[in-house]
Amino acid sequence: MGYNYKIVLQYEGTRYNGWQKQGNTANTIQGKLEQVLERMAGHPVDVHGSGRTDAGVHAMGQVANFHLQKEWEPGQIVSYLNRYLPEDIAILQAERVPERFHSRLQAIEKVYRYQIETGEKRNVFQRRMQYGLGEALDIPMMQKAAGLLCGTHDYRSFCGNPRMKKSTIRTVRAITVNQEPGTSLVIMTFWGDGFLQHMVRILTGTLIEVGQGKRQPRQMPHILEARDRKMAGFTAPAEGLCLIKVEYPCSPGEEIGYFDRF
Amino acid sequence: MGYNYKIVLQYEGTRYNGWQKQGNTANTIQGKLEQVLERMAGHPVDVHGSGRTDAGVHAMGQVANFHLQKEWEPGQIVSYLNRYLPEDIAILQAERVPERFHSRLQAIEKVYRYQIETGEKRNVFQRRMQYGLGEALDIPMMQKAAGLLCGTHDYRSFCGNPRMKKSTIRTVRAITVNQEPGTSLVIMTFWGDGFLQHMVRILTGTLIEVGQGKRQPRQMPHILEARDRKMAGFTAPAEGLCLIKVEYPCSPGEEIGYFDRF
Repeated sequence: MGYNYKIVLQYEGTRYNGWQKQGNTANTIQGKLEQVLERMAGHPVDVHGSGRTDAGVHAMGQVANFHLQKEWEPGQIVSYLNRYLPEDIAILQAERVPERFHSRLQAIEKVYRYQIETGEKRNVFQRRMQYGLGEALDIPMMQKAAGLLCGTHDYRSFCGNPRMKKSTIRTVRAITVNQEPGTSLVIMTFWGDGFLQHMVRILTGTLIEVGQGKRQPRQMPHILEARDRKMAGFTAPAEGLCLIKVEYPCSPGEEIGYFDRF
Repeated sequence: MGYNYKIVLQYEGTRYNGWQKQGNTANTIQGKLEQVLERMAGHPVDVHGSGRTDAGVHAMGQVANFHLQKEWEPGQIVSYLNRYLPEDIAILQAERVPERFHSRLQAIEKVYRYQIETGEKRNVFQRRMQYGLGEALDIPMMQKAAGLLCGTHDYRSFCGNPRMKKSTIRTVRAITVNQEPGTSLVIMTFWGDGFLQHMVRILTGTLIEVGQGKRQPRQMPHILEARDRKMAGFTAPAEGLCLIKVEYPCSPGEEIGYFDRF
């Protein structure tokens, strides 16, 4: 199997077809990483991400792992990748990890952020990271509904894949909804053990509809119980979503703080 | 003369040929503003900026003023402009100002920021606002040199226009150089009553050369005395530069804080 490496990376998802390699579509984050790693290592490399991010979704602390046939200094890997990857993908950190480490199978928590500009125009410097809704939202109502969507539930109503065969039970530990006083930016943060396809975006879309007065918080338990995608709200656009971090049972030597700079 | 309006605006300068309209080159901030204002007002409008920003330079709090033949609600102007301007230009504020107000002639202080990434790769989300130098700098030496470049001086050595006929005397009130501990981003801030063409970028380039050990702080007074562009350092790239704010003797009703959000 060789040597197993874990990397933490950031990307601005705007111009990519998402994380996952798809046939000939090279324009994915995974595809870009594998291209550069193969050139570095001189052999094919499979990169395993902690999870797929959709086309247009960003990441501040995505985690991936891959095996190399010979041993490399982690610093060399970071430098090589940063040099040859495009400027909208950056490696923050690399480290040798035990053979058994798998970035997806061992992830215990993921944190996502969704940003909504409720004012008439998105901030020019942050616009690629925000959904430009352009209308005010009732934050207390959204907070109330958000609380009712947390817990361990079957989230099938919030799953974008109608043919999902595996378990759709997930634990959402918390959803916060905040609007800083004096600003028109609404920031939602989601903590959970894992999220189904489009799940954060459908939770966001449903909560936006609560904030618009189109739905009531008390309807949330019924939406969960229905296990029917048609009962939940719209799928909020990808551009507002960002994978903030992925946590593991223990990550020796992991530097804290790279995602706190934003 | 009609009604005089002051606006505060932001722009990501990346895809523009700078502030100033140039003949047929419509791709300038001034040109975009005039186009939309003419459509709104139904008559030609001249927009006066507090100063020209170069191609690629950004602004968080640029100020401009213009006259309209009939009275408009400031909120209507903001909404109209934000609706029809491209998404990399945003109006933060508009207000009626006295007939005599001129955004350039009455500006008493300008604040510019220059961001340098000294690490191997720029942050993917901030990269359009940073110069990717990619090598470490000696910050204490830069701070020492920066102090020697402040004051009221003839800044001809730091002027990008060799045919400048007007006075090249300016007052630079302060230049700060900071690198937050644990990060590789160096932030320089310039406060002054006004800056010559390319002046902030040449001051930055000269200070970078000090930080690289190519120049000594004690040479700074000689560079100033020489009044010769060839004596100063290189012109740092436009992308790292941002006009943060412009101050006036009194700005009634001006909201503080729009530039503090970044």
